[in-house]
Amino acid sequence: MLTHKVDFRPHFKTHQSLEIGRWFREIGINKITVSSLSMAAYFSEEWNDITIAFPTNITEIETINELASKITINLAIENIESITYLTNNLKYKVNIYLKIDVGYHRTGINPINTELMDAILDVINANPLLTFIGFLGHAGHSYKCRTPEAIKKVHSTSLNIMADLKAQYKSQYPDVMVSLGDSPTCSVAEDFTGVDEIRPGNFVFYDLTQNKIGSNPLTQIAVAMACPIVAIHKDRSEIVIYGGGVHFSKDRLEDVEGTIFGRVVEKIENGWGNVIPNMYVNSLSQEHGVITVPTSEIENYTIGDHLLILPVHSCMTANLMKSYVTTDGRKIKKL
Amino acid sequence: MLTHKVDFRPHFKTHQSLEIGRWFREIGINKITVSSLSMAAYFSEEWNDITIAFPTNITEIETINELASKITINLAIENIESITYLTNNLKYKVNIYLKIDVGYHRTGINPINTELMDAILDVINANPLLTFIGFLGHAGHSYKCRTPEAIKKVHSTSLNIMADLKAQYKSQYPDVMVSLGDSPTCSVAEDFTGVDEIRPGNFVFYDLTQNKIGSNPLTQIAVAMACPIVAIHKDRSEIVIYGGGVHFSKDRLEDVEGTIFGRVVEKIENGWGNVIPNMYVNSLSQEHGVITVPTSEIENYTIGDHLLILPVHSCMTANLMKSYVTTDGRKIKKL
Repeated sequence: MLTHKVDFRPHFKTHQSLEIGRWFREIGINKITVSSLSMAAYFSEEWNDITIAFPTNITEIETINELASKITINLAIENIESITYLTNNLKYKVNIYLKIDVGYHRTGINPINTELMDAILDVINANPLLTFIGFLGHAGHSYKCRTPEAIKKVHSTSLNIMADLKAQYKSQYPDVMVSLGDSPTCSVAEDFTGVDEIRPGNFVFYDLTQNKIGSNPLTQIAVAMACPIVAIHKDRSEIVIYGGGVHFSKDRLEDVEGTIFGRVVEKIENGWGNVIPNMYVNSLSQEHGVITVPTSEIENYTIGDHLLILPVHSCMTANLMKSYVTTDGRKIKKL
Repeated sequence: MLTHKVDFRPHFKTHQSLEIGRWFREIGINKITVSSLSMAAYFSEEWNDITIAFPTNITEIETINELASKITINLAIENIESITYLTNNLKYKVNIYLKIDVGYHRTGINPINTELMDAILDVINANPLLTFIGFLGHAGHSYKCRTPEAIKKVHSTSLNIMADLKAQYKSQYPDVMVSLGDSPTCSVAEDFTGVDEIRPGNFVFYDLTQNKIGSNPLTQIAVAMACPIVAIHKDRSEIVIYGGGVHFSKDRLEDVEGTIFGRVVEKIENGWGNVIPNMYVNSLSQEHGVITVPTSEIENYTIGDHLLILPVHSCMTANLMKSYVTTDGRKIKKL
């Protein structure tokens, strides 16, 4: 990110692991993003500057106060009710981002609604425990893109929205910051004019969905699920694995073959190679996964073998697992 | 089940809770079904007759031996490789069901393939640690039904398949048993001729999918997720909750409004009332749920309130939760 003079505040919701977090610290990262207060509590053991990129959940005020008593936490606010609740119940200092809707329309303040922003800022400015630090956006609609050009267009709209806001608020708040972050735009875009920090997360592993969007080649997917074969049905060229929705989650991808839930890769010594063409998870139930296998391949597998499967959505799959095993056999703990 | 003279071996994969399991014991249940060996290990603390209704995963032979050393376990077998592995590696007695494909085509032996059944039985009969107890089927294709008639048709096919097998093997195995089980057929069917035990599980809570299939009225759904409101967007009549794919899983239901991920119910003292018409979870991301709200309803909600949401698939949602809270406020632990 040196090229773009942008701070890197990686999102740790994908790996959810203190140990993997340390790899980031080793290359100089000193602040992070998470998506829940429980995740913030977990990482607060080793990180002292954490952004919770989720609309502040006031029902967790105790956790907010506990975290704020010991580390810097940065909360996202998008309505008067939450900031009023915070100002009445906070015991320690917190930083506040205004969450801006840059076009995803899931959360955030409409960027033309400066009246609401000003009303929230009035509450912030009246309380010395609250500090406004900037505007936070998440272009989640980039996940619907299927070309780099489409991703860049989404990104350029975010840049314009945030540049306008920064221009409007810069004189009153000289240090006002713009924080953006989603793996597709951060993977593909080259222009980060006016952006002060980025918060991508999925890139740590990538997955089949990000590949479909255009964020990464298949060779950059860095996590796979090892699933034992429990049944082989040659008559319909299918393999059944112990690996279902409770392991992968049920995220699906509409791909050339139809709906898929994962793709099988070649096993090589200490890792994996290419995706095996036309071999994919065609359905998941609670514990079962059913794999479509090319008829030319089916003879290569035996009951009890493990298949290595690239996930459709690595965040959700990793969330369901209790730990990782590296390709050299070392266990890595996670939340 | 007295009416049908059928043994009841409930599937505990839905609730995954020792305490809820005790409610079944109180009404005389003494044997259960689970879907994985880890679940069997959890329940073996209080249950001594457990069926693992999943194709035997030979990579977990240590757990199989450990369980078999202390309780009765009943395994499902559908291929020569697994039974051969078992016969070579078992240290204690286990019971074996032959898993039969009654039409779902996910797992199981084709019911006309008695050659394979006989080959497996030869391995079983050669080892005193192995006992053949019967045929096990799961009519999972009942989940695609949308009328009681369609469910009964699926069920009647299963009955015929199993009756034929029983007739063929009865002389050689006088105690041969037929075990069937899926919540839709067990909820709707009235004819259980020739069936010796049933193994439904989802019925303990039911859910929106089972309701759509026709298994249960909405009023019988016995589990809801309480999710705090974190944002309200009146302009598009949407509410955002802290409740995403990591809480509900991503099971979806194609319903009258399109794809939904849950429905909101009225809150009443110590519980909930009816489903609120046209108020449903329209999308889930990792931690966010977005609720479509009728414009006439949107003024009734405040940031920090909890919405009660009926799940699309209670097994998957319950699996993601660490405990339950009863409507009178008591906590129930689970796996």
